[in-house]
Amino acid sequence: MDKHIAPVALEKAYRLINHGPTVLVSASHAGVNNVMAAAWCCALDFAPPKLTVVIDKATRTRALVENSGNFVIQVPTVAQLQLTHDVGSKSLLQEPDKLERAGVELFQIDGYETPFVAGCSAWLACRLIPEAHNQNTYDLFIGEVVGAWSDTRVFRDGHWHFEDANPELGSLHYIAGGNFYAIGKALQADTDK
Amino acid sequence: MDKHIAPVALEKAYRLINHGPTVLVSASHAGVNNVMAAAWCCALDFAPPKLTVVIDKATRTRALVENSGNFVIQVPTVAQLQLTHDVGSKSLLQEPDKLERAGVELFQIDGYETPFVAGCSAWLACRLIPEAHNQNTYDLFIGEVVGAWSDTRVFRDGHWHFEDANPELGSLHYIAGGNFYAIGKALQADTDK
Repeated sequence: MDKHIAPVALEKAYRLINHGPTVLVSASHAGVNNVMAAAWCCALDFAPPKLTVVIDKATRTRALVENSGNFVIQVPTVAQLQLTHDVGSKSLLQEPDKLERAGVELFQIDGYETPFVAGCSAWLACRLIPEAHNQNTYDLFIGEVVGAWSDTRVFRDGHWHFEDANPELGSLHYIAGGNFYAIGKALQADTDK
Repeated sequence: MDKHIAPVALEKAYRLINHGPTVLVSASHAGVNNVMAAAWCCALDFAPPKLTVVIDKATRTRALVENSGNFVIQVPTVAQLQLTHDVGSKSLLQEPDKLERAGVELFQIDGYETPFVAGCSAWLACRLIPEAHNQNTYDLFIGEVVGAWSDTRVFRDGHWHFEDANPELGSLHYIAGGNFYAIGKALQADTDK
């Protein structure tokens, strides 16, 4: 594992996605690995941490999640702009070499079967909480976060440090048509009011 | 209605929240208006547009949403940093004058009973799709977007224009402890690859 990666306490895991970044979803089953982009991923609870992610019926990733019961949500960086767009706009069903063409490098963490995407700023390993009605009606999947890690150059001590980090480590926020925004400057509200 | 506000086509409404901004939830029932902040709001579908929002059982807003069947999601701006924090950290249950103290100004749009929060950059009027299991188990509410509007100084022609607009109109992305990030610079992926 990259020397910059360190575990994040589960009670702080929601902070990894609280600012609404576009994420990558990785999943694996029966020897097939896949990665897709998802703009529609959101924290759902603090403790135990849970999240939601929308996974369309047309994606290859969906069956991998449903069959394995596991997936990983990771926060890609500005340096991964094109990779993020490519894994979100191409399907493994039409392009069996999609991951290689997009430049995706996978790595493993001991104790987790799902592969993780290298070069991201944060990773949340999730166990699917099966909810057939949500999955079938809304393409909505709920996961319990069972492990979390960050690149300590940009998230450490329970906080993002985008303002001090290399801008290439910033998060991506997708709109449409290949148009993203990077996360911007830090703002502090008065909490004593 | 402010002269800068214009309707957004429903098929483009998802773009108003696709980049993961922290939002304000307004709701009204039996003469009680309330507004809360929510970092956990996410698009769910394109057409008809739907979204999810997590509304805790401890909030006053929750009963207003459940009893009226309607709510409005709006995207607050950098200029509303303190307002957003204040309506997210105080409850109408303890502070009956919460909205006045936070400086919230409400306005109406013809045909919608729920009040809208002035000064935001985008508004999505939602009809609750009742899902008792999600609401009771996960505090997760699903809404169908039935009307959408934007401040045309920052969202027009179906696109955000944060890069050309006054930075005070940027969106807010909450982490924790009063710490937010503003949306940052525009990035374009190559869509012809």
